[in-house]
Amino acid sequence: LKGTERQFVDKLRRQAGRRGAVPRRASFALRQGIGDDCAVISSPGKKDLLVTTDFLLEGVHFRRQWQPADALGHQTLARGLSDIAAMGGTPRFAFLSLALPAGIDARWVDRFFSGFFRLAEASGVTLAGGDTVASKSGVLADIMVIGEVPRGTAVLRSGARPGDEIWVTGRLGGAATALEQLRRGKLIAGRTQALRTRSYHPPRLAIGRWLARRKLASAMMDVSDGLSIDLARLCQASGVGACIVADAIPRPRQTSLDLALHGGEDYELLFTVPPRRARNLPNRIEGVRLTRIGQIQRGRRLRLIRAGREELLPVLGFEHF
Amino acid sequence: LKGTERQFVDKLRRQAGRRGAVPRRASFALRQGIGDDCAVISSPGKKDLLVTTDFLLEGVHFRRQWQPADALGHQTLARGLSDIAAMGGTPRFAFLSLALPAGIDARWVDRFFSGFFRLAEASGVTLAGGDTVASKSGVLADIMVIGEVPRGTAVLRSGARPGDEIWVTGRLGGAATALEQLRRGKLIAGRTQALRTRSYHPPRLAIGRWLARRKLASAMMDVSDGLSIDLARLCQASGVGACIVADAIPRPRQTSLDLALHGGEDYELLFTVPPRRARNLPNRIEGVRLTRIGQIQRGRRLRLIRAGREELLPVLGFEHF
Repeated sequence: LKGTERQFVDKLRRQAGRRGAVPRRASFALRQGIGDDCAVISSPGKKDLLVTTDFLLEGVHFRRQWQPADALGHQTLARGLSDIAAMGGTPRFAFLSLALPAGIDARWVDRFFSGFFRLAEASGVTLAGGDTVASKSGVLADIMVIGEVPRGTAVLRSGARPGDEIWVTGRLGGAATALEQLRRGKLIAGRTQALRTRSYHPPRLAIGRWLARRKLASAMMDVSDGLSIDLARLCQASGVGACIVADAIPRPRQTSLDLALHGGEDYELLFTVPPRRARNLPNRIEGVRLTRIGQIQRGRRLRLIRAGREELLPVLGFEHF
Repeated sequence: LKGTERQFVDKLRRQAGRRGAVPRRASFALRQGIGDDCAVISSPGKKDLLVTTDFLLEGVHFRRQWQPADALGHQTLARGLSDIAAMGGTPRFAFLSLALPAGIDARWVDRFFSGFFRLAEASGVTLAGGDTVASKSGVLADIMVIGEVPRGTAVLRSGARPGDEIWVTGRLGGAATALEQLRRGKLIAGRTQALRTRSYHPPRLAIGRWLARRKLASAMMDVSDGLSIDLARLCQASGVGACIVADAIPRPRQTSLDLALHGGEDYELLFTVPPRRARNLPNRIEGVRLTRIGQIQRGRRLRLIRAGREELLPVLGFEHF
């Protein structure tokens, strides 16, 4: 499905746009629908609502034996929070739909929620609802997060302009590296730094807000499926091209350039900054490094400069295992 | 899981209440969390937000061959809309997380969305986002609906008081009757009236709003798992007991009392009305019959009057097949 997802989403977007009737004089109105990290709903007050959903399926997105249950609880919520971060928002309420196999160990479920609530508490998020059902095929979790942002300040994917600098938070490819090691049987769940980083990655909420409040980011999204495909999405939404520099891409020592370019699940922020604003950008925010990796360009091409030579950036979708 | 769901939800509610920090001076605040048809979020404007999620799994909630794809698309959205109706609200935005098996027929998916969008259009709902992923185990759909209601007017489950009359919309047990016929192989999908009624049941949005605006309903919920268990939930939330009359329960001609009492998926409204307000209740709203089936009482017992004798009402959870 992954290969056809864009087509599918494009189609849905057309149908949704054509058919969804918006009542007049409504208090809530859709500012941004399908196609960004979150939907943005304007409210009559001074805040806009952000809404995101994320589906996590055993056997597709994770294997139960590859991480402690509390790491999975953390990740389930973290994926939603990362989408809120990518709009510059503050998460407020979470809704969790959870399908569990009949015979599942109650301690596993307890630990799942322990990881979930630890992150919820740290992020000021209230679990406001959800649904629990029996599953015939492993653990399935759908997370919905509602956040808020001061009116009109949500940072969309579509605001990048030629000349804007391209930046990322943290380092890329670490999660994919840990996943590769797991595949090769080199890791025991929870034991190594790489895996801990992958398992309990903190959503970049403070950084997203910091950039949005100061109007430093012209476009922003989180890197969930891999830098190349997510940069392609940002550029498509903005109607621009880009050039990035291989050597500039921050990655852990043991991570290959390929994994840093195309590996998924890092949940770092990818954002663009107009050049005149870039001088206001610090090297670090809350201890996390910000790195400039390239520039937005006219046209639609994505380019990679590697060893002094320019090539087309291959855009590879992140394949869940 | 179904048998332990209440325990599980109770536990979640305690954890969510204990741990979820609510920022001060926040614009949005949770008025009603886990344990009603929808979460109610107050906003700074004149409207409260309603949020509901509902998980629909192939092999648990439905079988693909038992209904046309467009009926499943309708049902996926209708379940969420029914929760909004049960609060007296107006649905505005839907978010759909959909997992599809790799080899699924594209025409099936088209028809699914055709049913989904037909109901969305009729209900004034915009598809504002969602997530599509590959499934390794059949079609999985999680629907989230956001609605609105004038501030403070959401009808909760917890407002029923001793002496209130108990009412239902439409007829009960029809969906379970169709399901039984399907199980016995007596129906071909889409062919009979019973099945059409089950497949394309209209959410009771207009009735829910009508009752809420006039402040006629002291408590309300939708009948999704069966009258007995849903009445038990309403009574538990309100801290009351109830007595209902078997002969008064409206049901189709071919439906047994047992299915009318304990069958699920009817998506009618169950509501209570203070006696002094009951005179304002019409027999029908928008062509749908309203029927008084009993009375709220002190204590915690649920009673059934059958053939002139009073017995305890058996509370049977609806078992998905």
